[in-house]
Amino acid sequence: MTHRKKTKDDFLAMDAADPLACERQKYSLPEGTTYFVGNSLGAMPKASRERILQAVEQEWAHGLVESWNNADWINLPERIGSKIATLIGASGHEVVVADSTSVNLAKLIVAALQLKPGRKTIITESSSFPTDLYIMQGIANQLSSGVEIKTLDRDEIKHAVDENTALLVLSHVDYRTGELLDMDEYSNIAHDAGALILWDLCHSAGVIDVELNKYNADFAVGCGYKYLNGGPGAPAFIYVADRWIATINQPLTGWMGHQSPFEFSQKHKPADNIKKMLTGTPPVLAASCLEGAVDTLLEADIQLVRQKSMQLGQLMIELMQQFDCESFGFELVSPQIAVQRGSQVCYQHEYGYAIIKALIAKGFLADYRNPGVLRFGFAPVYQRYIDVWNLVSVLVDIMERESWKVFKDIKQQAVT
Amino acid sequence: MTHRKKTKDDFLAMDAADPLACERQKYSLPEGTTYFVGNSLGAMPKASRERILQAVEQEWAHGLVESWNNADWINLPERIGSKIATLIGASGHEVVVADSTSVNLAKLIVAALQLKPGRKTIITESSSFPTDLYIMQGIANQLSSGVEIKTLDRDEIKHAVDENTALLVLSHVDYRTGELLDMDEYSNIAHDAGALILWDLCHSAGVIDVELNKYNADFAVGCGYKYLNGGPGAPAFIYVADRWIATINQPLTGWMGHQSPFEFSQKHKPADNIKKMLTGTPPVLAASCLEGAVDTLLEADIQLVRQKSMQLGQLMIELMQQFDCESFGFELVSPQIAVQRGSQVCYQHEYGYAIIKALIAKGFLADYRNPGVLRFGFAPVYQRYIDVWNLVSVLVDIMERESWKVFKDIKQQAVT
Repeated sequence: MTHRKKTKDDFLAMDAADPLACERQKYSLPEGTTYFVGNSLGAMPKASRERILQAVEQEWAHGLVESWNNADWINLPERIGSKIATLIGASGHEVVVADSTSVNLAKLIVAALQLKPGRKTIITESSSFPTDLYIMQGIANQLSSGVEIKTLDRDEIKHAVDENTALLVLSHVDYRTGELLDMDEYSNIAHDAGALILWDLCHSAGVIDVELNKYNADFAVGCGYKYLNGGPGAPAFIYVADRWIATINQPLTGWMGHQSPFEFSQKHKPADNIKKMLTGTPPVLAASCLEGAVDTLLEADIQLVRQKSMQLGQLMIELMQQFDCESFGFELVSPQIAVQRGSQVCYQHEYGYAIIKALIAKGFLADYRNPGVLRFGFAPVYQRYIDVWNLVSVLVDIMERESWKVFKDIKQQAVT
Repeated sequence: MTHRKKTKDDFLAMDAADPLACERQKYSLPEGTTYFVGNSLGAMPKASRERILQAVEQEWAHGLVESWNNADWINLPERIGSKIATLIGASGHEVVVADSTSVNLAKLIVAALQLKPGRKTIITESSSFPTDLYIMQGIANQLSSGVEIKTLDRDEIKHAVDENTALLVLSHVDYRTGELLDMDEYSNIAHDAGALILWDLCHSAGVIDVELNKYNADFAVGCGYKYLNGGPGAPAFIYVADRWIATINQPLTGWMGHQSPFEFSQKHKPADNIKKMLTGTPPVLAASCLEGAVDTLLEADIQLVRQKSMQLGQLMIELMQQFDCESFGFELVSPQIAVQRGSQVCYQHEYGYAIIKALIAKGFLADYRNPGVLRFGFAPVYQRYIDVWNLVSVLVDIMERESWKVFKDIKQQAVT
């Protein structure tokens, strides 16, 4: 099968026909920058700026402490949670916004071990995002009850989940390769062995039509600052399937998870709903910013977002082939097939870090992950098709002129 | 001893002579409102608004993901921590900003138990802020190693701390009565028994010249949104005395506590400094807002802040006596003596909730804590002496006219 070679005009035409094209104007994107790092930090929705200013000026400065009631701060975690729920195939009462992904993971992992007494093993992937692994290691060190964390390669998992497995913890999208895991398949693997499954949706919430309830997920976490565009260090979210809400007990029993926090009673009594997953005082300003972002995202059809995301990735791979980028030493590390990928396309290259720096110098922001992986994330609500054409064109130019070589000896920065 | 009765002019004169009077203009205070709830949610420093806007517009929207390096987001928790350190008598490298007070408490309590192997008891006060009690209960439930939480009355603590005590957890200021605990005394009680001491500074950081190192504190936590004025739900802070930093292990081992988070290694290796207390991605926007607030606070001499705080409280008590408020049924529940109080004066009254509502209707914001406690917090950087005169005058008026009675049957709101 041969394809007609694609031209710049093809990409312009795709933008002209894009039903999501109108979304881009809702985001603030700096002049001269083309952004492929929405998988690490989403761009700023203009509504987020407005919403956080409202929270600062009207609710805090003017409303002061009375805004707990008057601006309904107290219900912010649930309110935003129920909005995120519609993006991840959950019911509104199953999701709440709280803390960081790492802290939420800790809550759910300890809770899962209590829900499966006698089972002492937690299974996860060696390619999980490191904080997931670290949190599990921390829990295993802390609990004196012989909990074992098995960190396995993906193809070993199927046979490893057994009657000792309390929980299977998986990243929905591999942060390094972009591989999208089959929720149905792994859910069945866990449940067939009587284990629970927890999904880390950091790289899928907001860009993939996640179907937690359809595939019987038990628990999930995800962060607010990637495809949800909630701002740097935005609060994370936590999902507990309805069937577990009544019985789950999480360990970080702070006052906001209490049934009646303002009774100031001495004994903790967990809320009888998803609020029981809360711990401390909600981060009102940061959560308000996230709310503006989620509201903006909800204006786009998540199915269309997913379709465009797959197209953007497919077009990048196609262009990289069309311009024979393999000859420059690029090796695709993401799946070729769109439905097996999240919203990123990744290549390995010996001089990956220098090439990323050369791209950034040209105004094309992408990021780098050790060892040697160049990551290109696509955020379909503000990404244009022409961005992909321009990216590959510039990349080819950098490789042909060898202009990346000036960055060859540059020291990696603190954050890569 | 008889005092000359104080007049309004005396209060105006005190404001005119107040070396902190120039601080007030740095805060945004709504017209027509006199605010006594800085002990629950500090007013907005104008620099916080500017700083969060800078973080949103320049750092996030314009700088995008590169701001991790270019705006030094990665060091934000340490940078703000070192500023807070100067307010609480700590060294800069002993404090870091992270998570919520509740989550930070959990980290330190589990860590303390590991530092004192064999000791199974944690002692705290029954009048601790409830979230502290709840967090300890959650840990005791979670750890299967027989940890016991003893929740005692204050006068029982001295005799209860013994060779089984791993940790004494105390609130520096009683959130309900405003009583200030003697750090020296309790530090000695803990250390004489070989136990550790953890201070909750939520109601003292930013308003009292706390001396953690002088009194050999081991650990402390505190919130960012009370007297630090960091905004609703601002991130909290955590203090670990230098002598414990090398050996402490906290349980929530997220990636930001890793020695090299961007190595993305599979095994957690804690940082060798205070960063080991971090867990997830720093809440950049909220932390930036807090930084603006702390920068503003540092422009005032904390010794002068404490002196004025004591004066404000003393004047309130004096005026309440001068106007014979006991006859209206008010009973002082805070210590009479200024040095034994934090920065709040509290009265008990059978109809406390209705009286607070009547005050709020007149533009005087104070808050209420069950059962029957009216709390008046003083934030000397934006509080005027005349505010206290006006408060007591209005309170007397409300009691004389019995105008509080219209609020007598009002239902308590979600947040009190």
